[in-house]
Amino acid sequence: MTTDTLDTQCINTLRTLAMDAVEKAHSGHPGAPMALAPVAYQLWQQELRYDPASPSWPNRDRFILSNGHASMLLYGLLHLAGVRRVNRDSGVEDVPAVSMEDLQKFRQLDSVTPGHPEYRWTSGVETTTGPLGQGVANSVGMAIASRWLASHFNRPGFTLFDYDVWAICGDGDMMEGVASEAASTAGHLQLPNLCWIYDANRISIDGSTDLAFTEDVGRRFEAYGWRVLHVADANDLKALEGAYRSFKEQRGKPTLIVVRSHIGFGAPKKQGTASAHGEPLGAEEIKGAKKAYGWPEDAQFLVPDGVRERFQERMGARGKQLREAWEKTLGEYRKQHPELADQLDRMQRFALPEGWDKELPSFPADAKGLATRESSGKVLNALAKNYPWLVGGSADLNPSTKTYITTSGPMKPGDLAGRNIHFGVREHAMGSIVNGLALSKVRPYGATFLIFSDYQRPAIRLSAIMEVPAIHIFTHDSIGLGEDGPTHQPVEQLSGLRSIPGLIVLRPADANEVTEAWRVIAQQTHHPVALVLTRQAVPTLDRTKYAPASGLAKGAYVLADSEKEPDVILIGTGSEVSLCLEAAEKLKAEGVKARVVSMPSWELFEQQDESYKDSVLLPSVRARVAVEQAAAFGWERWVGLSGSVIGMRTFGASAPLKSLLQKFGFTVDNVVKVAKETIAKARR
Amino acid sequence: MTTDTLDTQCINTLRTLAMDAVEKAHSGHPGAPMALAPVAYQLWQQELRYDPASPSWPNRDRFILSNGHASMLLYGLLHLAGVRRVNRDSGVEDVPAVSMEDLQKFRQLDSVTPGHPEYRWTSGVETTTGPLGQGVANSVGMAIASRWLASHFNRPGFTLFDYDVWAICGDGDMMEGVASEAASTAGHLQLPNLCWIYDANRISIDGSTDLAFTEDVGRRFEAYGWRVLHVADANDLKALEGAYRSFKEQRGKPTLIVVRSHIGFGAPKKQGTASAHGEPLGAEEIKGAKKAYGWPEDAQFLVPDGVRERFQERMGARGKQLREAWEKTLGEYRKQHPELADQLDRMQRFALPEGWDKELPSFPADAKGLATRESSGKVLNALAKNYPWLVGGSADLNPSTKTYITTSGPMKPGDLAGRNIHFGVREHAMGSIVNGLALSKVRPYGATFLIFSDYQRPAIRLSAIMEVPAIHIFTHDSIGLGEDGPTHQPVEQLSGLRSIPGLIVLRPADANEVTEAWRVIAQQTHHPVALVLTRQAVPTLDRTKYAPASGLAKGAYVLADSEKEPDVILIGTGSEVSLCLEAAEKLKAEGVKARVVSMPSWELFEQQDESYKDSVLLPSVRARVAVEQAAAFGWERWVGLSGSVIGMRTFGASAPLKSLLQKFGFTVDNVVKVAKETIAKARR
Repeated sequence: MTTDTLDTQCINTLRTLAMDAVEKAHSGHPGAPMALAPVAYQLWQQELRYDPASPSWPNRDRFILSNGHASMLLYGLLHLAGVRRVNRDSGVEDVPAVSMEDLQKFRQLDSVTPGHPEYRWTSGVETTTGPLGQGVANSVGMAIASRWLASHFNRPGFTLFDYDVWAICGDGDMMEGVASEAASTAGHLQLPNLCWIYDANRISIDGSTDLAFTEDVGRRFEAYGWRVLHVADANDLKALEGAYRSFKEQRGKPTLIVVRSHIGFGAPKKQGTASAHGEPLGAEEIKGAKKAYGWPEDAQFLVPDGVRERFQERMGARGKQLREAWEKTLGEYRKQHPELADQLDRMQRFALPEGWDKELPSFPADAKGLATRESSGKVLNALAKNYPWLVGGSADLNPSTKTYITTSGPMKPGDLAGRNIHFGVREHAMGSIVNGLALSKVRPYGATFLIFSDYQRPAIRLSAIMEVPAIHIFTHDSIGLGEDGPTHQPVEQLSGLRSIPGLIVLRPADANEVTEAWRVIAQQTHHPVALVLTRQAVPTLDRTKYAPASGLAKGAYVLADSEKEPDVILIGTGSEVSLCLEAAEKLKAEGVKARVVSMPSWELFEQQDESYKDSVLLPSVRARVAVEQAAAFGWERWVGLSGSVIGMRTFGASAPLKSLLQKFGFTVDNVVKVAKETIAKARR
Repeated sequence: MTTDTLDTQCINTLRTLAMDAVEKAHSGHPGAPMALAPVAYQLWQQELRYDPASPSWPNRDRFILSNGHASMLLYGLLHLAGVRRVNRDSGVEDVPAVSMEDLQKFRQLDSVTPGHPEYRWTSGVETTTGPLGQGVANSVGMAIASRWLASHFNRPGFTLFDYDVWAICGDGDMMEGVASEAASTAGHLQLPNLCWIYDANRISIDGSTDLAFTEDVGRRFEAYGWRVLHVADANDLKALEGAYRSFKEQRGKPTLIVVRSHIGFGAPKKQGTASAHGEPLGAEEIKGAKKAYGWPEDAQFLVPDGVRERFQERMGARGKQLREAWEKTLGEYRKQHPELADQLDRMQRFALPEGWDKELPSFPADAKGLATRESSGKVLNALAKNYPWLVGGSADLNPSTKTYITTSGPMKPGDLAGRNIHFGVREHAMGSIVNGLALSKVRPYGATFLIFSDYQRPAIRLSAIMEVPAIHIFTHDSIGLGEDGPTHQPVEQLSGLRSIPGLIVLRPADANEVTEAWRVIAQQTHHPVALVLTRQAVPTLDRTKYAPASGLAKGAYVLADSEKEPDVILIGTGSEVSLCLEAAEKLKAEGVKARVVSMPSWELFEQQDESYKDSVLLPSVRARVAVEQAAAFGWERWVGLSGSVIGMRTFGASAPLKSLLQKFGFTVDNVVKVAKETIAKARR
């Protein structure tokens, strides 16, 4: 592409739209879009394999704006490229994803142009960004997915998947640990289809990056095993073209392109300063910048003639051709590989394969039982047999989390056909990579100890904001892990996860609840799940004596009941359910009527209607005792001011399990004692 | 030092103690201590400036075992070196920190030898480690502290501070993002006194690190600005000596020593395998290893004659001499610089300077008011004037968090005299560095947006476990931040913080509560604090009309009351307190009696006696409404089953503040409506 006048006009349109929208909103980040407009323009127009008329085309190149505060750059691109709107059922509507009116409602309530780009909310946004480091880490998941999908679906003569993943990121992304972890992973796997474009503008909120960030980023990435290219001037389209071409021609490892840019490019006083970052430029600076661009100084939201057409002629035409050719290939593929084509269709809507649950095990009653991580390992493998795109791994804890799919192998550098991912000791990147896989319609899981959910909380939150059905598996779920002690014993993690809107937390009580948990998990399409499992054995309950484990699907259910209205309701989750059952037996022997409720999921229970909820937690019974080896925090929702919580109020301790149960009150005697006290208290 | 027989015996004592203790406990990690014994031995015996008789000597070198699972290595060292016990008041007792009996009670309830090393619990443990990456990140804080203390206290002829910080770490540490962030920070600051010793054993839990971790770590650290040295064999004491000497002689930047080691060294079958990592070796392997060491095969917990003495002769004698010389210097210093000496004394026990609070401002009533981040900035600066060792900064958010100490400058590469730290966009490392500073008795704070508390949760948790008075400042505390939208609007973060045992969360309602909050914060000695502040302006309440802000110290207090027993209690925190007051006025106009409770801190309130608590939340009044722009999660503790919570049940949205308040129900009309409904409900 030669830098002709029209290209320059397109680039300046992106810049001025960003300036104008931020100014109108009295809020936002104009500086990065002004700097990055040529970088993104060159990429979209000349490289990105993307059909604006079909934003869900499975083999489209992915474009991620990891420095999400530059959102107006993305909204401008979506607008000028004429990207169409995709509805909730993945249907394309002939309406712009981002209209001119939407641009003018930047950062206003219910507009599709929120402060940071939001997946699902705005068509064409591939992932929600803003919390720094997350977008680039997601991109690693997407690039892994591209290679895995290629291994799984491509056949001789049928290249269904070969998409590239491009991410623009800033100094902030580069400083975040999650991006370091993700980059190390990408280098290890030699991802050939991943290109990060690093906007080295050398300015962050405090001022020059020299205040805090003087490392040699390129050299660091070479150490990770990346190829590193440099572009000395973000406005040099030729140099950008050369770098993009080099990425596509060389392959073999991921590529980092370091682009030197000027934040707020063109603003007479603010260019290259922190004040161009996160606030409107002001009328004077905007005029000055427009003048510098040769733009009509008073024009607002101007899109000169020919600009939209230029996008259609280049990116649009190329994308259409590629997508149509792909559709044709798929048509033939459907005939020759109907089963795989069916899989591909289902994946797009997170639908399950036929017979996905036919091998899910049920477990015989067993007083000794087994750890729920163990039963989960069995169920996961039974599910994986008939769910070919269930893919995942752990943060260097395969033997402990029991999450290896034994019928497949690991993903290896340069060979990503396996279904097991060795994430390394990188919990945070694991969470973000899992999100990237889910955004690619693979069904992913990541596993670690519950305590390390803290390391990946920002990623779990984004699973929930984006409404992707990521599966976060957490074992070693309480002081029950014993000797590793307080640093490894989760206390406040369960309540922390339950407080994330939209996340379904599941803490099954025994092996059969584990089966039911996986049944619920498999069917999620919009909710991420946290599956919380024990390290230690728990009895497999006798379901001829107690209610069936299928009650799990309702979040809470009456597991054992007294003959008449109970004096007290004991509510347990996970490893504490069998303790509640034992306590109920003892109470019965003492003439106290107790009901035992197993409550594996608060969130599922809250979705039930009032009459079901009242049938489980009888409103007339205010003597309620919750028992959980976790922070008591939050349980008052179910037990109220008259109830009691046998939970943790401090950190744990390093000791064998039995000593800990005694120390912290998780014994039959203590549950019985508290139950009686609570009955007395509720009567007062 | 030449590798004579006695040195070898000392090293093998460390190894066999670890093997025996893990075996006896049926739990633990023998492999790393067996590999690292010579590395630690050479360091302690020849380099570490540490007096076992005075473990709290302020200028001691710090030794950190970042791979905390190797705890038996540290316990063995503490035992053999004869480190003394320090009591809660920092007094040294003539009792071993770790006795032989303690070693034999490894991982048992209440023993001083828990699964992972715990600060405060076991004397000589400089920081709690186990969650990977944290120890090395703490070490950066300690090294910063050493340089800052030197700038602050050293005077011509008086070198009070020049200690070095040594950290041993493993592959897991190296993979964690928090360690990357911390290493980049250390390189930037050119910390000359920081040495990380990287145990490159190339084995992690899943097996070979080649499964997930193939980057060039040394090259990465060079990119951060570190000097990188290599030791090819962990058993080569000469090579270790050379590396340690090189660190001490060259200085100018932090040093990484990459040591190639063999996990489970000496075990006939398990050496170099993942199975030597996290479980007892078993009797056979132990015998085999002991045989390989030339050790009596059946001896248990054997400490050969001369081993303890060897430690006393070398490390002990050197440490004693250095510490006594330092005490002598300090004695003279006390005469010449009494004021500074007084500061030094106070710091050691987190005591405050005389007159620390004399300039704390009070703010006049003002309906428009100011953001609590703004008032906090003023109070922080007023406090800093008379609290010379209050030091901190933000994660690239100085202009936003208002946390810059204007009477001082920034810490710069090679010059750490300033009191302001530019942490960069590295929230997690900031949290860990703040912990390292607190462990060094500097009073530290770190600031970012509340949403990014998620990025540093593991570090905040460790502040609480270690009981250090770290100050975590979080601004932009709710949907009140407006247009940045859901990715930046905290929802579940407040409940997440409140659920951490021991952490005091403070969300002041106005400028005068901010002053009181800082008064409480300054006086903490064992509790970390999360100070939660608004982005937007809140009214400064008229304290002639309402109760004084000093009520904050009790966690919750009656701010405004009805003349007779109220029909309803409105409970607010932070920006919602003035909303509650307005609603109460309106209710009054409608004949409804309302009490308004300001509840800036659940934790402080819980510390009060029952009668105070009952005087604030009258047990007879069950119609209670909590109002907080955060997840409703947990508020049932105060409002019970009959009460209501006006809180968040979803993520936020990107829009101007006014639209958001309307959308999410934070309006006077809605509070009034819910209050009336709640009164009706509570009567039922």
